[in-house]
Amino acid sequence: MVGGGQLARMTQQAAISLGVTLRVLSDSMHASAARVVSDVRVGDHESLDDLRTFAKDSDVVTFDHEHVPGEHIRALEEAGTPCRPGSAALLHAQDKRVMRERLSGLGVPVPRFAPVATAADVEAFGAWPVVLKAVRGGYDGKGVWVCENPAEARAVVERATGEGIALLAEEHVPFRRELAALVARSPYGQGAAYPIVETVQRDGICHEVIAPAPGLHPDRAEEAQRLALDIAARLGVTGLLAVELFETDEGVLVNELAMRPHNSGHWTIEGSRTSQFEQHLRAVLDLPLGDTRPTAPYAVMANVLGGDETDIYPRYIHVMAHDPGVKVHFYGKEVRPGRKIGHVTALGDDLDDVRERARHAADYLRNGPR
Amino acid sequence: MVGGGQLARMTQQAAISLGVTLRVLSDSMHASAARVVSDVRVGDHESLDDLRTFAKDSDVVTFDHEHVPGEHIRALEEAGTPCRPGSAALLHAQDKRVMRERLSGLGVPVPRFAPVATAADVEAFGAWPVVLKAVRGGYDGKGVWVCENPAEARAVVERATGEGIALLAEEHVPFRRELAALVARSPYGQGAAYPIVETVQRDGICHEVIAPAPGLHPDRAEEAQRLALDIAARLGVTGLLAVELFETDEGVLVNELAMRPHNSGHWTIEGSRTSQFEQHLRAVLDLPLGDTRPTAPYAVMANVLGGDETDIYPRYIHVMAHDPGVKVHFYGKEVRPGRKIGHVTALGDDLDDVRERARHAADYLRNGPR
Repeated sequence: MVGGGQLARMTQQAAISLGVTLRVLSDSMHASAARVVSDVRVGDHESLDDLRTFAKDSDVVTFDHEHVPGEHIRALEEAGTPCRPGSAALLHAQDKRVMRERLSGLGVPVPRFAPVATAADVEAFGAWPVVLKAVRGGYDGKGVWVCENPAEARAVVERATGEGIALLAEEHVPFRRELAALVARSPYGQGAAYPIVETVQRDGICHEVIAPAPGLHPDRAEEAQRLALDIAARLGVTGLLAVELFETDEGVLVNELAMRPHNSGHWTIEGSRTSQFEQHLRAVLDLPLGDTRPTAPYAVMANVLGGDETDIYPRYIHVMAHDPGVKVHFYGKEVRPGRKIGHVTALGDDLDDVRERARHAADYLRNGPR
Repeated sequence: MVGGGQLARMTQQAAISLGVTLRVLSDSMHASAARVVSDVRVGDHESLDDLRTFAKDSDVVTFDHEHVPGEHIRALEEAGTPCRPGSAALLHAQDKRVMRERLSGLGVPVPRFAPVATAADVEAFGAWPVVLKAVRGGYDGKGVWVCENPAEARAVVERATGEGIALLAEEHVPFRRELAALVARSPYGQGAAYPIVETVQRDGICHEVIAPAPGLHPDRAEEAQRLALDIAARLGVTGLLAVELFETDEGVLVNELAMRPHNSGHWTIEGSRTSQFEQHLRAVLDLPLGDTRPTAPYAVMANVLGGDETDIYPRYIHVMAHDPGVKVHFYGKEVRPGRKIGHVTALGDDLDDVRERARHAADYLRNGPR
């Protein structure tokens, strides 16, 4: 797995059960996954040499982020290393313009969009507020700007032009809420879908995930699962595909794609018979996929962000004592304000109670007693 | 954790979630846990020098087996390293005579027993068949001999005397079935008990575990949980305590003790809100203990032993395809006939179905199609 972040770290837990040896390409021996894997190669995911050395003797190469240049993945593929997802599929998670054009070509509902190079292009797009997005490289709210008027848009375009960043304009969708569909697809062509979840964002960062999405009509849930499985098949995805969705009065629109374990799927570690990390490994290794059945009526995952206090050990103890059933996941990262350092998951029958438990734990770990 | 076997391997999965750094002392870099831990120290668990080097900078030392000499653990304790369980408690899992004498002194029901040095001692014990046990060092049926008559007993005594092995004679208990109680106790004194399970042995090796033990009267289950918690408190155990029990017409008798994650608790990885591996870490780190609630009405774990065919990959694929819900755990060990190489767990509402699923998977992984 290329990348030493928390996704690779949690993939290691699944690899241990499956008896699969996980090798990680990490930029440091101190990265989240590098701390818990025995076969760590330190290197640069943008260096083809490092990738080639890393891939040698690997059965399959997969990714914990989207930042490996497509031409490098193609070079590995041409040298005979299976990369899953492959470069052709992964491009749709790397380049928002390619993704939007391909999905709309397939008839998948997406927000109205247009590539923009100048402030005049944005004005011609003619929808306010407008969402401007970096075509490449954004994540966790970075690379997304909501502009209320032409003056704001002009400032974003000027800065982006100066930095050589290509932009896409999108209509600002008046969504009711955000949902996510998580599916897996193997090279053999087997597919598996998890229940549709509601994701609650705050400052562009996933804050809370509720599984399943409360009150979602079963027909709409099934429609969203089918949509994600269909996208996975049409784009030739191997491994996981997370589809971030806007729910509107008319139905769902696709917001973003990711082809790896995804923050919206962390609840599956305890909340599903097969965690997304195990499922990703099964899919990329072309093993039969696992059961996606839930283990409880509701699961709520809340991200833990760093607060001002770096020693969170007393808080960690409080959270465990306060609620013996809440599951904590720490990523082995130093605490910095606003940094994702872990997550917590609560399970149960009563949504309000489960949500309160997850929120309390995540809030307490960040802020302590208030 | 001293020992590089599968118990340390599965403890690593729990350590990753808790954000705890697990260091392992292993006799080889190829041992089960050494393959999946970044901080492996190769050394001999019978060498005090190796143990001292290993324990340096560790917050707590714990064990994946009982084979560390008690005087070495005492030396670490005297040097200020917290060892959990401590040497005084662990002695009861290392020396069957000490355990039997202590438990009977506490009024805990145990089989009738007597230390024996000669064939005449065994005859004086006067119960046939008689069970002769090595006082130290036995596991998985090794070090236990059931003798039907004085001639058989004499042969065992002569061999043991020749090898310097001290023996204990025990009555052969006409048990209905075997049960196991798994509890945790922290240095703070908090205790937590898992549901009582039924264990099915074959050739002295744990073959199958059914959680909870079917048809066990709730009063008797609670009595067994209390018994185990009481033993943990009286012996000063920190960490997990597994109590192997005989169920007879009159009640339960204690057979063996183990102070570490135990084969009878592997079902907790999926079958309980808190796995035994997480619970052991929480206990030895003096963290608040986790919820032991089951995640399904029944869980059945079956051990996977090696068969004659060393390439089990096609069988592994079959098992996953046949039953997407069965969870496989492989220990990263080479296949050798009769060797424990992994386990499988199935969960569900219907015991017969769950048991059949676990049995099919374990049997198929060992024997392939028949």
